[in-house]
Parts: sequence; structure tokens; C-alpha cells
Amino acid sequence: MNQSGTRTRLLTAASKLFGSKGFRAASVREITASAQANLGAVTYHFGTKANLYAAVLDQSFDRLATHIEEAAGAGRTSPESVRGIVATVFGFFREAPDVPRMILHQVSSRTPPPESVLRHLYRIVAAVQRVVSAGRTRGEFRNIEPVLVTFSLISQSVWFALAGAQIGPVLYPGLSSSALAGKIESHVADVIGRALAADEDTP
Amino acid sequence: MNQSGTRTRLLTAASKLFGSKGFRAASVREITASAQANLGAVTYHFGTKANLYAAVLDQSFDRLATHIEEAAGAGRTSPESVRGIVATVFGFFREAPDVPRMILHQVSSRTPPPESVLRHLYRIVAAVQRVVSAGRTRGEFRNIEPVLVTFSLISQSVWFALAGAQIGPVLYPGLSSSALAGKIESHVADVIGRALAADEDTP
Repeated sequence: MNQSGTRTRLLTAASKLFGSKGFRAASVREITASAQANLGAVTYHFGTKANLYAAVLDQSFDRLATHIEEAAGAGRTSPESVRGIVATVFGFFREAPDVPRMILHQVSSRTPPPESVLRHLYRIVAAVQRVVSAGRTRGEFRNIEPVLVTFSLISQSVWFALAGAQIGPVLYPGLSSSALAGKIESHVADVIGRALAADEDTP
Repeated sequence: MNQSGTRTRLLTAASKLFGSKGFRAASVREITASAQANLGAVTYHFGTKANLYAAVLDQSFDRLATHIEEAAGAGRTSPESVRGIVATVFGFFREAPDVPRMILHQVSSRTPPPESVLRHLYRIVAAVQRVVSAGRTRGEFRNIEPVLVTFSLISQSVWFALAGAQIGPVLYPGLSSSALAGKIESHVADVIGRALAADEDTP
């Protein structure tokens, strides 16, 4: 197992453990054990546990931002781009459930996110801005601040990814998990689409 | 200091500490110290730390549900009731910032909420259901599942209460915190209102 393999395994293990337990409760001992690395590996590769946390957050937000940028560039109409963004966020969170957990832990902490996370957040806001601007030019969307749209999108997506899996089966006992996921995704796409839609009486 | 005073102080201290640190990281020692109670007080009043956590969650969701029920009963039009619900949730979270933190920690845990929390959640869904039904009768709202509306409302309110305070000043550097709070509240009320609004071409 080479150096870069260890670094990758540490990031993967840390993402899982920070995601499930939060920064404080996840110990370096657990992370290195889960990554099959020696106890000094975190210090060697990242210096401190805080730096490892920042690297995991950075990686998660980078992937999220990249997915959103790609989806924002696709779609033939603006509403289609919005549905594509929601679909890609939900798909990503299904594949990588540690990511919404990490985001939730970051939001619930009292500390502002590190600079690198803010940089990815700005990328997401910029991608949403492009979609909103294109939609306004086409007369499909109204004037709305992309920062607020981004928050509405991320909050509901993270929330439904976690709370939906947790209490969805209680609230919708007859529904399969994939049917539930589909219902939730189309609801969020609908809410965001309606938030953006131009008013009927606006020229 | 009498018994019921100690119990109340334990709930208050636990709410703060569970809110800021999460269930695992908040210790019984810290909670009793912060409540100015002796170390055995949690065992005496609640049996276990898990029971204390359940009692705090129960109390928080009970208050949230009561606020929403009251707001749902007010408002002369359905859109007015919705704005009232959003305003009351935001007001409550401003007064009791531990509550959105507790809710976030519950959502990020892998365990479903205790029965008592589900009971309060059903009360919230029922209140939203009443507002949606009244709005449909008046032709103001479309047919939409109250469970999904409730999730959209709670997720955005909790998120903006925490993330807004954390990175709002970074994203809106010129804005006072009360102006920022007003902007966010009116955005969420708008998003929920548009999610519910009857389509123009629907009779």
C-alpha cells in the first residue's frame, strides 16, 4: 500500500466517521484503524485531525459543486436545467450518503466553514446564477437571488436525503424506498422550479 | 432549589449542550455542572442520558408543534396562514437557537426519532394539512401532500436559522443581522407560498 493509497483511504474512512459521528466524536484511532493505516498516518498526511476534516469537507463540496456545474450546463430549457440540478444532487447523495451528513455536521457546528468550502459554495451559487440568468433572458424565470435559491436547494436535498431515509418509511409505510426517493426528488424539483418560475402576469 | 426546579434546569442545560455538541459528545458531568445540580441528578430525574435526550427532544418538538398549530389557526387567507407559520417558526428558532440544532442532530443521527417526537411531527403535518385543505376549498392552493410541505418548511427554516447565521455575514457582508433575517424569512415564506399556490390555469 503506497502513500497516496493511504491518503485516499484516510479520506474515505474519515468521511464515513465524521459523517456518522461528527468531528469531535470521531477519533484519529478509529479513522486510522478503519483505513488500515498506522496511528501516525493522520499526522503524516494531514498534520492534524482538523486538517483532515477540512480536506474531507473540501473534497465533498468540490464533488458536489462539480456535479451541479455539469448539470447547470445541460438542459435545453431553464426548468429542465433546474430539474437536472436537483436530480444530480439527489443522485450524488444516494451514492455518497456521508456527504449530506458531513454538510449537516458543518451547518450544525458553530464555526464558519473553511475557506476552501466557501470557494466551492461560491461555485455552486455561480452555477445557479447562470441558470437563473438564462431563465430570465428566456422569460422563464423571475428575478431571484441565487444565494437564496442555492440554500433552498441544498437544505431540502440534504434534509430529505437523511430525514427521508429515516422517517419516510414511517410516514409512507406502503412505499418502496425507490418510489419514496422518486416522490421526494420530484417534490423538491417542483418546489425549486416554482420558486424560480416567472409570474404569469410578468411580461 | 426544589426538585422540579432541578428537572427544568437539567432540561435547559441539556438542550444547550445536546444542541451545540450532539448527544454523544455532551457528557452528563457537563450537563449537571451547567444545571448546578449534583452528578446523580440526571439518573434521579430521567434514569439515563438517553431518556434525558428524549425528554429534551420531546419538549422542543412539542413547543414547535404548538407554535405551528396556533399560527395555522390564524390568518384570514390561506397564504396569510402560511406566512404566519413561517414567521412563527423563524421567531421561535431565533428565541431558542438550541432547538434547530437539536433537530439537526436528530436528523443527522442514524436512529429514527422517538415515538413522542413522531407524535409532535404528526401534529405539525395535521396543522399544515388543515391550512392546505382550507386553501384548496378557497381555490387558493393546489393539491399537495402536507408531509412534503412540512419537510420543505422545516428543512429550510432549520437550515437558514443555523447556516444563515454562520455564513450569511460572509455572503451578505453589508447587511445587518436583522435585515438578513428578514430577507431569509421572506424568501422561505415566498418559496413555501409558491409551492402551495394554485396554478393560474387550474379552475
